[in-house]
Amino acid sequence: MSKNLTSRAEDYSKWYNELVVKADLAENSAVRGCMVIKPYGYAIWEKMQAELDRMFKETGHQNAYFPLFVPKSLFEAEEKNAEGFAKECAVVTHYRLQNDPDNPGKLRVDPEAKLEEELVVRPTSEAIIWSTYKGWIQSYRDLPILINQWANVVRWEMRTRLFLRTAEFLWQEGHTAHATKAEAVAEAQQMNRVYAEFAENFMAMPVIQGVKTESERFAGAEETYCIEALMQDGKALQAGTSHFLGQNFAKAFDVKFTNNEGKLDYVWATSWGVSTRLMGALIMTHSDDNGLVLPPNLAPIQVVIVPIHKTDEQLEEISTVAKDIIGQLKKLGISCKYDDRTTQRPGAKFAQYELQGVPLRIAIGPKDLENKTVELARRDTLSKTIVPLDDLVETVEGLMTEIQETLFKKAFDFRSSHITEVDTFDEFKKVLENKTGFISAHWDGTAETEQQIKELTKATIRCIPLEGKKEAGSCVFTGKPSVARVLFAKAY
Amino acid sequence: MSKNLTSRAEDYSKWYNELVVKADLAENSAVRGCMVIKPYGYAIWEKMQAELDRMFKETGHQNAYFPLFVPKSLFEAEEKNAEGFAKECAVVTHYRLQNDPDNPGKLRVDPEAKLEEELVVRPTSEAIIWSTYKGWIQSYRDLPILINQWANVVRWEMRTRLFLRTAEFLWQEGHTAHATKAEAVAEAQQMNRVYAEFAENFMAMPVIQGVKTESERFAGAEETYCIEALMQDGKALQAGTSHFLGQNFAKAFDVKFTNNEGKLDYVWATSWGVSTRLMGALIMTHSDDNGLVLPPNLAPIQVVIVPIHKTDEQLEEISTVAKDIIGQLKKLGISCKYDDRTTQRPGAKFAQYELQGVPLRIAIGPKDLENKTVELARRDTLSKTIVPLDDLVETVEGLMTEIQETLFKKAFDFRSSHITEVDTFDEFKKVLENKTGFISAHWDGTAETEQQIKELTKATIRCIPLEGKKEAGSCVFTGKPSVARVLFAKAY
Repeated sequence: MSKNLTSRAEDYSKWYNELVVKADLAENSAVRGCMVIKPYGYAIWEKMQAELDRMFKETGHQNAYFPLFVPKSLFEAEEKNAEGFAKECAVVTHYRLQNDPDNPGKLRVDPEAKLEEELVVRPTSEAIIWSTYKGWIQSYRDLPILINQWANVVRWEMRTRLFLRTAEFLWQEGHTAHATKAEAVAEAQQMNRVYAEFAENFMAMPVIQGVKTESERFAGAEETYCIEALMQDGKALQAGTSHFLGQNFAKAFDVKFTNNEGKLDYVWATSWGVSTRLMGALIMTHSDDNGLVLPPNLAPIQVVIVPIHKTDEQLEEISTVAKDIIGQLKKLGISCKYDDRTTQRPGAKFAQYELQGVPLRIAIGPKDLENKTVELARRDTLSKTIVPLDDLVETVEGLMTEIQETLFKKAFDFRSSHITEVDTFDEFKKVLENKTGFISAHWDGTAETEQQIKELTKATIRCIPLEGKKEAGSCVFTGKPSVARVLFAKAY
Repeated sequence: MSKNLTSRAEDYSKWYNELVVKADLAENSAVRGCMVIKPYGYAIWEKMQAELDRMFKETGHQNAYFPLFVPKSLFEAEEKNAEGFAKECAVVTHYRLQNDPDNPGKLRVDPEAKLEEELVVRPTSEAIIWSTYKGWIQSYRDLPILINQWANVVRWEMRTRLFLRTAEFLWQEGHTAHATKAEAVAEAQQMNRVYAEFAENFMAMPVIQGVKTESERFAGAEETYCIEALMQDGKALQAGTSHFLGQNFAKAFDVKFTNNEGKLDYVWATSWGVSTRLMGALIMTHSDDNGLVLPPNLAPIQVVIVPIHKTDEQLEEISTVAKDIIGQLKKLGISCKYDDRTTQRPGAKFAQYELQGVPLRIAIGPKDLENKTVELARRDTLSKTIVPLDDLVETVEGLMTEIQETLFKKAFDFRSSHITEVDTFDEFKKVLENKTGFISAHWDGTAETEQQIKELTKATIRCIPLEGKKEAGSCVFTGKPSVARVLFAKAY
């Protein structure tokens, strides 16, 4: 397998696009803007799902499923909250195809089968879910409702990129209903923390927790919490959001409840989601010019064993050793693949697993059998060592933790060195163009200034960090007073 | 909670519809024909998914994800294979909504945003998947491809019923590609066996494995294997199908490969699926006039503990005991809920868990604390016993297996007593109307006879069973020669 991967330095964007395809993660489909997620890519997504699902259930949530379609009239109910919401949606207008009478062998939409009301393929499910919650909620005894949905959604994006921005994508969307404002705010904050823990502990991707400015909020939200990550090219990526929706959706869909004092009130809401976009973030955080680098906690194959042999007899001996290793690793919960294909040479296999980011590679040859050793190669550092067979399982177990931590630390150090405090707009522009990364600067709090900076530099306010000193100062652009620094960056 | 459930004898269909809603499994939505799967229903589906997914992976399959939309032209390519395929599909024709200039506050489809080619919301994914496989397959080394997808699909059904027939439903669809006919046939047969094992061991639902007649086959299939179950009202339900597709889709999408002799050939295919329809089958197989009855292997809550107390002090003592029981059961992998809500009386809780089919209910009162006993109630038999606390965990563990087996045996006995061999058409009609169930009868093998019997009696050939004696005879309708009996029934 020839890699021929464009280097990151040469063209980061091209490197990413090639890597996704060559590592067998995903590809473009026959449908504009929609991707095919291939088995290897989907296996990573499944590992993400399993862990997130566990975390959601541990925090008291249950899964459910709501319809793919949203009647147009439900969007109208929401519209007053959500004027900013993109209307670039897939719209179903008909319910039947028929043979085209004018073109034998061709199909056409049956003009008689027009829907009375158009259906929108869900871009997000607040409308359909809150119109459903209306029937479920009468009293405070029916609250809270803590529901999550794993689903596909569609947004008609004009410029798409595999995982990062696709017309159809997979995600989870939590939609909760509460009796009090305080409880809903706490829920939105809690889920943002869950996302941050997942990103850091499983994706080995450091994130900054913060809130969005008013202009960057989800339409209909009163506060949008987010986690922001930094990619290797110095651009930020919003990796997850959690919204405190106030009573906006309850008002739009008339969802009231009797509180414990017997009074009618509107229900308080949150929603929160992460998507297959996380796959893009994962790839861009760790991978290198040789291909994918995966943290052990999300790698579908954590260890691969490649036999090096000339004779069938050698292969048989190596296989006996390999199967013993696999058995021992399995007991420790470490997944290990034995690649004894005879249609590929060891070199081609090495290249493939390097490209696909398998954290550890074990090679066993006839010399190793004699010496009771194996060759162990780390994908993250590309280093190789000879390990005595007797120490192997323990070494592998230790490396699973060590590689996970090394990847996090490397990404953390990169990010730390790419948060730059600036106090003048000249410096702001210079850092943005040369050093890149997050810029920590004072801002006067107005949407006008935010917009002007964006137009001049393409940098947006990624978030107002939740942690960090609340130091007063002067806006980097207008010089007006500011209560705290915010983080600017160019972003995906 | 008042049940007010219509009895099965009174109106089976009404009983089913009420049960699904009252047991909190699913409900109709604001979108015609689409359901909301509620958390309790979805938790059962998740258990089904987890087990099926494990079985698919154990047989070498990987998951992947393909686009929701299928361009109309891909259906045209398939059309020559699949003239019988229903064209009742949701069709996306536009990609934008806009504010309606004539109706303030209303939205309309933007007439400028018409798609060049209409997109069909997938009713099944053969077309999009085989157009993708074309790019993946060049040589026999690329085969087999063994892929499964968990997805939502849409078929514009005119008459819908929760779980049994809905416009949108959730399913899994396996799509495999093989180098030889024998391998593809073996795969289709294997997956039908996997479905049968799942149905019998997890759903406790006996099924008959068979093949469909030509007229009942999936359009494009050369053989359709199926599992057929019998509901309590004597109607059959097709619970899963596995298709040997020959080279039909490879020809439609021009998917050729170089075989190991260096010659070009078309690829051999299978597809197989089960859906949320299984939820309907599960409900109708075991439930009774008191509500849902769930086999322990699929029950989201296997055991529930209800405290019976007058004072807070009593509740505290009971809680200590309950928590100890839960801890012990958890170690055995048995899920147990402790319902200490003070907003509901014990009687209401009993009714709720009976309605929701929790296999075992433990009640603990002050008397029990004194005597070191609990009251244990089985949902399947509605029997209650007093069990010494010391024996409880062992008893519960044993009952998990016993209830699972009892449910299977009961359903098996019902089915066995509802397979009737008949040799005259008069008897055929009599059995069908009075006794109901499967009718085992000789058939001359023609589509004409099959069609005539269907028109006269509404009974269809459910399958030609794979097992059983191949006894020759005369067609029950025409008297012409027959090589073996087939199974007729009215069906869902």
